[in-house]
Formats: sequence, structure tokens, C-alpha cells
Amino acid sequence: MQIAEIEDIARRALIRAGARPQAAMSLARAIAAAERDGIPSHGLAYLPTYCEHLACGKVVGTAEPKLSREMPGIIAVDAGSGFAHPAIDAGFAALVSLARTQGIALPAISNSYNCGVLGYHTERLADEGLLGLGFTNAPASIAASGGRKPVLGTNPWSIAVPDGNGGASIVIDQSASVVAKSEVAKRAREGKPIPPGWTLGPDGEPTTDPNIGLKGTMLPAGGYKGVGSALLVELMAACLTGATIGAKASPFSGTAGGPPRTGQCFIAIAPDGASGGEFKARCSELVSALTEEASAHIPGEGRRAARNKAEREGVVVDPGILEKASVLAGMDEAR
Amino acid sequence: MQIAEIEDIARRALIRAGARPQAAMSLARAIAAAERDGIPSHGLAYLPTYCEHLACGKVVGTAEPKLSREMPGIIAVDAGSGFAHPAIDAGFAALVSLARTQGIALPAISNSYNCGVLGYHTERLADEGLLGLGFTNAPASIAASGGRKPVLGTNPWSIAVPDGNGGASIVIDQSASVVAKSEVAKRAREGKPIPPGWTLGPDGEPTTDPNIGLKGTMLPAGGYKGVGSALLVELMAACLTGATIGAKASPFSGTAGGPPRTGQCFIAIAPDGASGGEFKARCSELVSALTEEASAHIPGEGRRAARNKAEREGVVVDPGILEKASVLAGMDEAR
Repeated sequence: MQIAEIEDIARRALIRAGARPQAAMSLARAIAAAERDGIPSHGLAYLPTYCEHLACGKVVGTAEPKLSREMPGIIAVDAGSGFAHPAIDAGFAALVSLARTQGIALPAISNSYNCGVLGYHTERLADEGLLGLGFTNAPASIAASGGRKPVLGTNPWSIAVPDGNGGASIVIDQSASVVAKSEVAKRAREGKPIPPGWTLGPDGEPTTDPNIGLKGTMLPAGGYKGVGSALLVELMAACLTGATIGAKASPFSGTAGGPPRTGQCFIAIAPDGASGGEFKARCSELVSALTEEASAHIPGEGRRAARNKAEREGVVVDPGILEKASVLAGMDEAR
Repeated sequence: MQIAEIEDIARRALIRAGARPQAAMSLARAIAAAERDGIPSHGLAYLPTYCEHLACGKVVGTAEPKLSREMPGIIAVDAGSGFAHPAIDAGFAALVSLARTQGIALPAISNSYNCGVLGYHTERLADEGLLGLGFTNAPASIAASGGRKPVLGTNPWSIAVPDGNGGASIVIDQSASVVAKSEVAKRAREGKPIPPGWTLGPDGEPTTDPNIGLKGTMLPAGGYKGVGSALLVELMAACLTGATIGAKASPFSGTAGGPPRTGQCFIAIAPDGASGGEFKARCSELVSALTEEASAHIPGEGRRAARNKAEREGVVVDPGILEKASVLAGMDEAR
């Protein structure tokens, strides 16, 4: 399938489920980009959840993001319990020129929702020649150091580095847990065990049963340092934006609990102001050092390889997922 | 010993070794704070290294930091191959009022040196009511994912959260490696083995011999996610500031190679602009969630407990370390 077809199906499905057209277009673009970049978990496979969340009121399809410029370098965006994507779009529309003149600027998005692939958003800042940092919080599933109860989300952070030619040379996008919670849920659906080291049960003990793990906590990557990473993101994405902290947010899955009202925070930096024009040269040195060994990887290169292939050849979508998406889009009879 | 005595000894020793008085005072304050906060590795134990580095030219004792305001939200500070501490002081002197009016501001410090305890600096921003982020890079000792050669430093990041009463409620300060490199060096000096999982040898294989580990690489905390964290810091502290990347920097230990010229970057954010005044309430909710279980820890509480004890009772300094420091300060005969 071509990327444009995927975007079209997603957009139609979201509008049918109650999203206003601009919000649907914003999210559909991100869904198509996830398929393109080899991240199908956030592609059409997620579309039924988005539509379900429009239906049950976890997401308000008609919400219009409200912007306010609180201070010269700060943009506050109230997503109004709508999708995160149009709220981020609204923030970024004001952000790019602001960061270029101020040197650094921060959009804070509250009353929001799951923003999908965080690196998708930071990469858009890199495409504009800005160094982009991003933080997004999630309902709690990681315990505090020394604790057993979930208090922090798997909370990813991301950084995208402009290559100076309208793209990104490095994109890091990493959650605080050893693996994504969706991977544990997938094993539970499939009735397969999980390796020890992914989760703890509610008793604080390691488990290989995904159903017990889902009732307990996700293990942080690197022990207490993973907890520190989750906490950094909670502070930036929830406390700093006035959004709901993970310990109080309703789940991103299922239909219960109303809008999660979690948050996102980005920081965009004009890289030449701080570096005296040396940024691009330093990044080239860093990329050279990282790639001197043929066996070494740079974060983001997997997504870029998938993208190049998709742009040449299109992508393969699981037939069951495509069928469901087509039904949601009202396009099943035409096929 | 009282904190003020430690500061006095350190200040005198640094001036005798060739630091200008203001630079010596700035660093001496940080040395005393490390002893106070229960981090003796960065206290008087480090003083002989600082003095040695003044003598061998790794640090230029007479350097005066040069400030320029490149853009409304950006302050560039050239440390001139002097100590990091007076350069950070100079940046912060301009930063605090700037962040309060702009909402967000960034000092970028280049041509710098080891800044000691990173959280010491971010906490000073929290003391001013600002959310403080910090990044500092170091000579390379971590390999890229899939690589064997050191290309990134153990590169810590830090965040300090203002409590609204002139202090910090949370201070996170964590390096990208499983343990500090100084811990491996200590085991090497003591002739003790290290646990597997701390380092790899030059052949990329795990080792329990600290001498082999020091010739290889430090293992990142959380595998590739620790590498991601080191890379984030390298981008912020070196590429964004125009400082020297870890792969090219001279060592922080020994006397060879001249000034390391590494960098620091901080971001200070006025928390009420972005959160619509909700920041303090959200942080209280977060701290409550984190401390609901009696067994759970909050980052920074260890340092705070040590500080409270030190302010009541003073601190105990190893007699051998104190003797060396007193000789360096020219105070040995007076004792």
C-alpha cells in the first residue's frame, strides 16, 4: 500500500467516528508515518482504539486546541480532551518562528491524550532546522525505587537533531521501561510467557506470566536510572504543563475512566545561537565517531531505512488490520 | 569539621595552585557542598587533582569567563579553559532574571572542564524558584550500541524541582553508565575485582578485572537506553554549546593532553508560565504518589538527609585526605 492510501483510510475512519476534519487529518498523517517508518503498532493497528475512544468519550472529537502565549518563550496549549496531535500541531505552528527568534521556546500541552510516536513530533522540529526535545507522560505502570505500586508511566523522551538539510541526522525516542507495555499485552493475548526482567507482579516479585505482570509494574530500564528517566518526563510533561500525573490518569486502553488528560512538553532550540555556529560541525564529528565501527548503530537509522524502503515500494499492512480499518472508514464495500 | 572550614581550606589551596580568587571561591563552595551532601568523592578528595590540573595546564587558573547574549533566550559562556564553576556562576548570574521574564532560557558553556556534582548546579536554579535542567559531557568511555570502542562519556543529566520555598523538592542527577568510572578506578587502586556488568574489556567481553575494564568501556545503564541517555547529553552539552565532544576530549584524570574543553548546558524554566500556576500543586501530587509506600525513595532525599546532619553536626573527613588538603592550602604547620 502507498502511504497516501493509509492516510486516507485513517482520516475517513476518524471523521466517521466523530473527529473534526482537521484533527482527523493531523492524526491520520501520524498513523501513515508510523506505517512508513516500520512502527505498525502505532499505525492502522491503533485506529480501532482511536475510534473507540472517540465513541466512548475518552477523546472529544470536536475539541479545538486553545493557545495562549504566557511568556515570551512559553506557549500553553489546552487540548480540551481532544487528540494530542492537533494540539501539538497548533503549538508547533507558533513555535517554529518563536524558537528561531528567541533561541529557545517551549510549548506545554495539557488536557491531552496519547501522542503516538513521540519521535514523529520531535523530528518535525528537526525538519525545521531546530533541535527538538519532547516529553509525554502516560498512566502509571512503573513503581518508585523501593516501591511496588505503579506511580509513573513508561514515559518516553525524545530528541531529534537537525541535519541542516531539512531532515534529522539522529532521532532518539525511548521509554523508561525495559519493553513497551503493549508488548506484554500482546503476549497476554497470544497466551505466551514473557522473559523475567520485563515486569514484576503485584507482590513485587518477577513473573513470566504476562497477565500477572500487567497487574503489577513494568520494570524500568537500568533500575533506578529508568525510574529517574520516567520521573524527568513526568515533571516536564505533566507537572510543568498542568496536565494530569500518571498516578491519577485514566488508562490509555479500554473505554473506562473518561479522558486521561495527560500532557506533552517540547523544547525547540535554534542550534547556532548557543554554539556560535559550530553545531553542525560538532554533530558531524559525533556521527563520525559513532559510526567509525561498522557494527555500531545510531538511534533513528532503523526508522530511516524503513522509510526509504516504504517510499520506494510502499508498505505491507496485515490483511486483518486493513479489513477492520476499511470497515471503520466505510470503504469496505468499495474494495 | 564545619562546612565553612572545608571551604576555606579548598579556597586557599586553589589560590596557591594558581586559581584567581573568584574562581577558587566558586569551586571551593562546591567542594564544601559535596562534603556536606555526603558525596566525598567530589569533596576534598578531589582537591589534589584540581591543583594538579592548574599546575599542568589542564585548567587555566587565570581564565575569566566571557559571556555573550546571542539571542533573547540564549546565553553563551566561553570558560576559556578555566574551571567550569566560575563559568557556570557567570552564566547563572544572567540566567535567573532572564528565565523569569522569558519563561525559559539556556546558558551554553564551552571550553570548560569537569563541573563536579551536576545536581549542585541545577539545585541552585531550583533555589531561585526555577525548574533546572543540566547536562555535562565527559571524555569518552561508553561504546555506541553494537560497538566496542569508547565514543561517549558517562555524561550525566540532572533536573532539580523548586519547592516554592527557596529549596528543591526533587533532585535527579544520574550518569549514563551502570556505575561511576571513579568506582572502577578505586577498585583498581585497591586491587579488588569488580562485578560483571560494570565494564567490558577492549575485546568487548565482560570482565571482573578493573584494569582491563578501564582499558575497555563502561557499560551503559539499561543497555541501549543508557547509550541514548549519554547521546542526549553529548548533543546538549557538547554539540549545542560548541564544546569538544567526548570522543575528542583529553582525559579528566592524569596530566596529559591539555584542557579537555568539554561543555555544560542548562535550561531554566519559570514553572508557572507553562502550567497556568498549577506546577506546585502537580509536584505535590507527584511527591505524594511517590511516597505513598513507606519503602519508596525519592531522588535527592539521600543528599538532603546528609546535608541536614552535616549542618547540625559537621562532617567527618578522612584524616589522610584532610592532611593532603591542608598541605596544599599551606595550613599544615598551623595545625
